[in-house]
Amino acid sequence: MPADPSLRARAQAGLQLDAGLVCRVLEAFIRDEIGKFGIQRAVVAVSGGIDSAVSCALAARALGPAQVRAVLLPYRTSNPASRADAETLVERLGVSSVVIDISAAVDGLLRELDDDPSPLRRGNVMARARMMALYDQSEAFGGLVVGTSNKTELLLGYGTQFGDMASAVNPIGDLYKTQVQALAEALDVPCAIREKAPSADLWAGQSDEEELGFGYAPADQALYLLIDEMYRPADLTAAGFDAALVCDLQRRVVRSQFKRRLPVIAKLSNRTIDRDFRYPRDWGR
Amino acid sequence: MPADPSLRARAQAGLQLDAGLVCRVLEAFIRDEIGKFGIQRAVVAVSGGIDSAVSCALAARALGPAQVRAVLLPYRTSNPASRADAETLVERLGVSSVVIDISAAVDGLLRELDDDPSPLRRGNVMARARMMALYDQSEAFGGLVVGTSNKTELLLGYGTQFGDMASAVNPIGDLYKTQVQALAEALDVPCAIREKAPSADLWAGQSDEEELGFGYAPADQALYLLIDEMYRPADLTAAGFDAALVCDLQRRVVRSQFKRRLPVIAKLSNRTIDRDFRYPRDWGR
Repeated sequence: MPADPSLRARAQAGLQLDAGLVCRVLEAFIRDEIGKFGIQRAVVAVSGGIDSAVSCALAARALGPAQVRAVLLPYRTSNPASRADAETLVERLGVSSVVIDISAAVDGLLRELDDDPSPLRRGNVMARARMMALYDQSEAFGGLVVGTSNKTELLLGYGTQFGDMASAVNPIGDLYKTQVQALAEALDVPCAIREKAPSADLWAGQSDEEELGFGYAPADQALYLLIDEMYRPADLTAAGFDAALVCDLQRRVVRSQFKRRLPVIAKLSNRTIDRDFRYPRDWGR
Repeated sequence: MPADPSLRARAQAGLQLDAGLVCRVLEAFIRDEIGKFGIQRAVVAVSGGIDSAVSCALAARALGPAQVRAVLLPYRTSNPASRADAETLVERLGVSSVVIDISAAVDGLLRELDDDPSPLRRGNVMARARMMALYDQSEAFGGLVVGTSNKTELLLGYGTQFGDMASAVNPIGDLYKTQVQALAEALDVPCAIREKAPSADLWAGQSDEEELGFGYAPADQALYLLIDEMYRPADLTAAGFDAALVCDLQRRVVRSQFKRRLPVIAKLSNRTIDRDFRYPRDWGR
């Protein structure tokens, strides 16, 4: 099959977005979805990174800054610059905020373990401790949890199930990382946040792109073609995409499917939760 | 409308189960669903209650006791009898076990809060700290998390989202509480576990039925008719069911829907996660 250089251009075009329009759609989404529960408030875990900055900015526009609580959740090894960037954002948006240090909770669990957990296990404990604190603030503030996972992370499974992937409503889950970056500019997210290297900040010097082994720009293009446009891996390699990258992406999407699903319930009745019984479709009478 | 006493008999008949057959189906379910990931191991949070006892017993039968790790997760206010009952079960089943005290993790978070959290908030923090420890053991032991939420709890939202409701595979999620009780007998779950009053054991003396304000037996009958048989609330009250109970159940099912769903993602593309893109249906090529 001859190489098709136009495929990369197609991906680039498909990833373009009208930032003003997308912001208006997402603001309405947040207002509508949270309003369905009869409430007008939100909480957002703000890390100092770009994804949570965009989600928090959208929530502040949708509901008004006074209705949004930014929850800062540092661990003792977190980069102090992350905290400073989060505080700059909070100030610029005018939202309320609270700081809850998760070190005692995380270390309190880790000390109970009789082995030396790997960095992966430690990172998962941190992400879940953050969820635990964030959901407590959801109850305390009376606001729903606005999610901060983008489409790239969700597809690759590059996040912790029941940790940073947990939310009530997620405005950016259908936006690839590079699209979130484009939106951040339109939302006037502080430069320091927009320009630093993406990192989960679970340990010092962590970098998403180093850990993944590829950059977000080529990954987003390949994922867009594979998922959104339904091209086959062979189409991409024929068009000049790196074969190892395409193979790695495909493998990651397949292997992380469980993170994007609800628990699988053994079917024993005619009306099984999430199978046949999906209120309100089934119970809207 | 004349009262229809046969409706209660219909519910009683519908809730009957062939315990031997159901056990064989659920053992096969656990083996198949966990096997799909290429693994043969499971972890189960064992509380000393009947639901986790049944899930653990099913996992032990399905995979062999050596492939199952029971995770005991006491908090400093937990009833010591719960721990003793859990240990009796572990011994009877012959599964391996580990005890992880969650007190330091829970109190480590609660101390960081600048208000005095309600019992509800404390209970949610405990349930999520247990999830955090259980999922860490899932990684450490190399086994999937087998869930312990029954259909009654799931429908009523009587559980903590991303806490005790979190699992990979749930064998008992389509069984009402009274059906789990029937299964426990067939699985030879220790008498002490089968005969005590159901309790989340989040604080001393807690009782499910007192907290809910109704018994599981009438609730299961009403839920079976409303959900599985699709009767209307008016049909139930005409048949002699307590109107306040039926109304309360209906309200709880509606209000807890969010706990049975994935985060709602704002739709911006043609292939949105959990909407249009649901691997493997969409990506099984």
